[in-house]
Amino acid sequence: MVVRAAVAGASGYAGGELLRLLLTHPGTEIGALTGNSNAGQRLGALQPHLAPLADRVLEPTTPEALAGHDVVFLALPHGQSAAVAEQLGEEVLVIDMGADFRLRDAADWEAFYGSPHAGTWPYGLPELPGARAALEGSKRVAVPGCYPTAVSLALFPAYAAGLAEPDAVIVAASGTSGAGKSAKPHLLGSEVMGSMSPYGVGGGHRHTPEMIQNLSAAAGERVAVSFTPTLAPMPRGILATCNARAKPGVTAESLRSVYEKAFADEPFVRLLPEGQWPATASVHGSNAVQIQVAYDAATHRIIVISAIDNLTKGTAGGAVQSMNLALGLDETTGLTTIGIAP
Amino acid sequence: MVVRAAVAGASGYAGGELLRLLLTHPGTEIGALTGNSNAGQRLGALQPHLAPLADRVLEPTTPEALAGHDVVFLALPHGQSAAVAEQLGEEVLVIDMGADFRLRDAADWEAFYGSPHAGTWPYGLPELPGARAALEGSKRVAVPGCYPTAVSLALFPAYAAGLAEPDAVIVAASGTSGAGKSAKPHLLGSEVMGSMSPYGVGGGHRHTPEMIQNLSAAAGERVAVSFTPTLAPMPRGILATCNARAKPGVTAESLRSVYEKAFADEPFVRLLPEGQWPATASVHGSNAVQIQVAYDAATHRIIVISAIDNLTKGTAGGAVQSMNLALGLDETTGLTTIGIAP
Amino acid sequence: MVVRAAVAGASGYAGGELLRLLLTHPGTEIGALTGNSNAGQRLGALQPHLAPLADRVLEPTTPEALAGHDVVFLALPHGQSAAVAEQLGEEVLVIDMGADFRLRDAADWEAFYGSPHAGTWPYGLPELPGARAALEGSKRVAVPGCYPTAVSLALFPAYAAGLAEPDAVIVAASGTSGAGKSAKPHLLGSEVMGSMSPYGVGGGHRHTPEMIQNLSAAAGERVAVSFTPTLAPMPRGILATCNARAKPGVTAESLRSVYEKAFADEPFVRLLPEGQWPATASVHGSNAVQIQVAYDAATHRIIVISAIDNLTKGTAGGAVQSMNLALGLDETTGLTTIGIAP
Amino acid sequence: MVVRAAVAGASGYAGGELLRLLLTHPGTEIGALTGNSNAGQRLGALQPHLAPLADRVLEPTTPEALAGHDVVFLALPHGQSAAVAEQLGEEVLVIDMGADFRLRDAADWEAFYGSPHAGTWPYGLPELPGARAALEGSKRVAVPGCYPTAVSLALFPAYAAGLAEPDAVIVAASGTSGAGKSAKPHLLGSEVMGSMSPYGVGGGHRHTPEMIQNLSAAAGERVAVSFTPTLAPMPRGILATCNARAKPGVTAESLRSVYEKAFADEPFVRLLPEGQWPATASVHGSNAVQIQVAYDAATHRIIVISAIDNLTKGTAGGAVQSMNLALGLDETTGLTTIGIAP
Repeated sequence: MVVRAAVAGASGYAGGELLRLLLTHPGTEIGALTGNSNAGQRLGALQPHLAPLADRVLEPTTPEALAGHDVVFLALPHGQSAAVAEQLGEEVLVIDMGADFRLRDAADWEAFYGSPHAGTWPYGLPELPGARAALEGSKRVAVPGCYPTAVSLALFPAYAAGLAEPDAVIVAASGTSGAGKSAKPHLLGSEVMGSMSPYGVGGGHRHTPEMIQNLSAAAGERVAVSFTPTLAPMPRGILATCNARAKPGVTAESLRSVYEKAFADEPFVRLLPEGQWPATASVHGSNAVQIQVAYDAATHRIIVISAIDNLTKGTAGGAVQSMNLALGLDETTGLTTIGIAP
Repeated sequence: MVVRAAVAGASGYAGGELLRLLLTHPGTEIGALTGNSNAGQRLGALQPHLAPLADRVLEPTTPEALAGHDVVFLALPHGQSAAVAEQLGEEVLVIDMGADFRLRDAADWEAFYGSPHAGTWPYGLPELPGARAALEGSKRVAVPGCYPTAVSLALFPAYAAGLAEPDAVIVAASGTSGAGKSAKPHLLGSEVMGSMSPYGVGGGHRHTPEMIQNLSAAAGERVAVSFTPTLAPMPRGILATCNARAKPGVTAESLRSVYEKAFADEPFVRLLPEGQWPATASVHGSNAVQIQVAYDAATHRIIVISAIDNLTKGTAGGAVQSMNLALGLDETTGLTTIGIAP
Repeated sequence: MVVRAAVAGASGYAGGELLRLLLTHPGTEIGALTGNSNAGQRLGALQPHLAPLADRVLEPTTPEALAGHDVVFLALPHGQSAAVAEQLGEEVLVIDMGADFRLRDAADWEAFYGSPHAGTWPYGLPELPGARAALEGSKRVAVPGCYPTAVSLALFPAYAAGLAEPDAVIVAASGTSGAGKSAKPHLLGSEVMGSMSPYGVGGGHRHTPEMIQNLSAAAGERVAVSFTPTLAPMPRGILATCNARAKPGVTAESLRSVYEKAFADEPFVRLLPEGQWPATASVHGSNAVQIQVAYDAATHRIIVISAIDNLTKGTAGGAVQSMNLALGLDETTGLTTIGIAP
Repeated sequence: MVVRAAVAGASGYAGGELLRLLLTHPGTEIGALTGNSNAGQRLGALQPHLAPLADRVLEPTTPEALAGHDVVFLALPHGQSAAVAEQLGEEVLVIDMGADFRLRDAADWEAFYGSPHAGTWPYGLPELPGARAALEGSKRVAVPGCYPTAVSLALFPAYAAGLAEPDAVIVAASGTSGAGKSAKPHLLGSEVMGSMSPYGVGGGHRHTPEMIQNLSAAAGERVAVSFTPTLAPMPRGILATCNARAKPGVTAESLRSVYEKAFADEPFVRLLPEGQWPATASVHGSNAVQIQVAYDAATHRIIVISAIDNLTKGTAGGAVQSMNLALGLDETTGLTTIGIAP
């Protein structure tokens, strides 16, 4: 069985990465590719690395273009997915790579996005407790944000096991593709090469409530998250440094043991051997997650560090992984843990 | 049929890239992995991006370690391949990713490498005239150098068609992985980021006679090559700018027509549409070659520009492509034209 | 004596670099700073590295704003300088950092820029034969293009000494700041990091006639130039690889001797010791030019390689150097040969 | 008055940056330059950006070579400074750019460095309370570590004003020059470009006790520091993200007010206007420190972010600033707040 997949928003970085994965996914064929400002252009001009699709032409994002597919991926600016999804039948698997259906709490949504809440769909981070069951057979999937993917995977085991105080401090560095393909002066190569800079400091980043949602669910209590994202001079990758005070009685051994168990059967998440640390280069282009933990006895703090590719596991790979579960395929179909390095 | 492949020199960049490709090659299984200075170490520490092989341990490069394989890849410093190859049976497919068996002319070898010539093996650049036939069923393959791959593919059609004067000027920019994984001060990140610099200027680079050999064979006359390599601040990729005076009567149309025909049936080489130029990012991690041509009427010169991934098409991908031909597999098995971008 | 300098176009990369230099120039004080789209903004938001000017506010580029200065620097898009210059008195030193007054041949201008020729001003590359005399005391200066600066300095000695055939092949790599600060998708950090790509191939780059003008003047005959610019993944720097067939009788020794003499008394140009090659990192932020020459006996070709900072010696430093000459100051005032590395 | 300065360890990154600054410092002349493994080499080969010193030759680091200078800078591996300093007279100003004399607590030293404590010298971070007085006229100066410079400047005002709980979480990204010029495989350009990775996680980094010392002194109580350094793909710069829970009653206004007062008269530290965030590119090559603060009401946390150039303010610029104080010169002599960007 091969399903036919459409991609709305095929000219951006998320759409391009999704197409890269679908091109070698044995269970899908690529149907309509749509875009709005770029409709009518050859994909070869927009995504020159996707040679097999070079002669495909982008259509406008319309119900007609998206009709007749088994799966529709939405890589649209937030706020636009609900309207498109409504026009697709309930039998169509709709996978939203935007933010619209990630949050459960409408007030959180409105506070951070300033628009009415569209709803909540099964959350496409299968490694979280209970997530797989909700994804299997689902016709709607909300793909997590890239930062919440890196951070939730890093910290949920500590919270689920009751090891960490509910007050996490997180600093993450992201490659520039996380900021998208819109041409803005501060994203010019001349500006970003050789520079590290923060943004959204002080609690304002829109991925914050998503992290709180995931970690609080794992902890069974509300987890406060102080999140600082930084822009790093590299095209891809997220390195998340996650820090929380340990609850009494935690030891380096108990910490490591919890993480070993949490990821023992996970196909994409790897707790590195002691002494080895995650590096974004090692997961470049792959769906892998590298994780390492440390217990700092002097400060009674737990430090968990994760590395992902923001476009793969953090966006398009996570979308494919969830699609596999929704379609009843092997979860790893079309995905790899092999990075491209150096 | 699945062949068993050993890799001698598995800790370096060429060896790592080869393993990345073999891991998803449906016709091979990975056997012995050897190294010398790194023997005894886990591959996970040396090639942390190759997650499925993380627990493999490097053996010393000995006849015993390499015995019992159908294919042996040699990723060794030049001068070492002949001795290893001799100890392998004639029925074993030996693919040398080093320089030892590339040159036909012993005097050229000795002038550029300063050691006795080991011999000449079928040359693993299938796109060159006559090369495929020599590779099919062969038990020995000499994988081309990375620069000669980019340059020969760019210029052989012009020379084969008699369009260009036999006096080529070539400037190529390479990512730093082309210089290998040995720790040398001038290759430190601090030194190379933000810097372009040349090396081997004035005819001294060892890839020069290999280019002359390939282009002269295509031209049917000796082609002089003035080659200047430069080191670019990126990990991977070669951009080769190749320039030669046009022979009388050449036009932009005749030039383009020759290139269209030359690559019409090539699975990995793509003449870009007019107006689009190669970029190394577009072929990152792929076996693809992007080529574009221009005729400069004011100077009567032909400019051909090619982009490859130096580790993939320029080394390990080229090796797999040749292995496929030698084994009678489809030439594209286990290889892709899809790059990882951005 | 301290002259008062205005900068029209202070928000771009050329304007910012000029201000960086003027801030420590002992003979100037910084007057009006103008911009058009950014008028009304604090310089601290536009050029955050220029801390001493952070609270200065950009004015619109009007005759009133520019009035009352001894020196006016124009860092405007080409085609706009003439109108502004006309409104400034003849006693004002006007230094155009754009292209408008560089070319002597109106037909060349019209062919490459598609607009009427504005005229020709003394050319601000003092190292060229005869250039200093024309700059001393001049009230108008045309600052050279960045590529022509690198290329003309590399090749004029060979042509002036009759060493090279009048048919030069040049490939140059430039940092992204050379493309300016306008936000265009192909200049995004995500696109340029990890990528080398050419542009303006085949004779179309607008700096080509300027190179021809300079080299032909040195040679006393028309020099054909085949110029290929490439975009390199770094913010600053130009590495120019310049190649021309040697005239009969040239030797490595005669070549080197000519270059030693040509630059023996030049404060900013340095012929490197034999065996050492230029690197853009070595001239980062400085007005220095590194040059090295090679004679390739096998191809009878001369290769000259130069490295400059495209924003300093290639634009703003060249402008200050010319200003010094025009004002009768020591040519090196406010300029340095010390780079910022690593 | 011009003092004569020697530099022991002139071939490394710290030594090179110091020479870059001394070359334009009006109060110093550069005397002996020493190195051990590189003794006998031309500085032009080791520090090609320092054109005016290209023909200087490194001497071995001996008492004879260092004799006869007014100031001696030591840029040596830790553990070596004491022996050299002892051989210099008490009238010589000795400025140690290594770690040996930074810590007051011998037990801290021994725990983190594993060798006997050499002593404690006046600490060269003039912006800290009381530091200037100790530096003025001193004949011995311990230059701070690069991370402690960025972190202490970011957090001391909050601690000195009693705004922050004594439990700081710090994540800092550093350019690769912070790791020095020794050729190690993980510092190769191929490895670091495109990668973010942590090191010294869990409390082990040697700069941790130095931060604790500085912040505890400001707070008047012991401050716990959980410090995670990361390696960023850029040659220079540190971005430090510093996070501590606010003490009760703190508001965004009170926080900002404290920082405005703390740095109002500091020549090198600049609290950015609200809404603007530090970027390492903005302080590239300068002695400037950019700082911004945020109060996150949702988590009751203070976030302070600082950006410095690790080689300038973080090492050599800090050394010159302290030298100026020790010699009775204006503190800003030979230093700038103007960065090189882009």
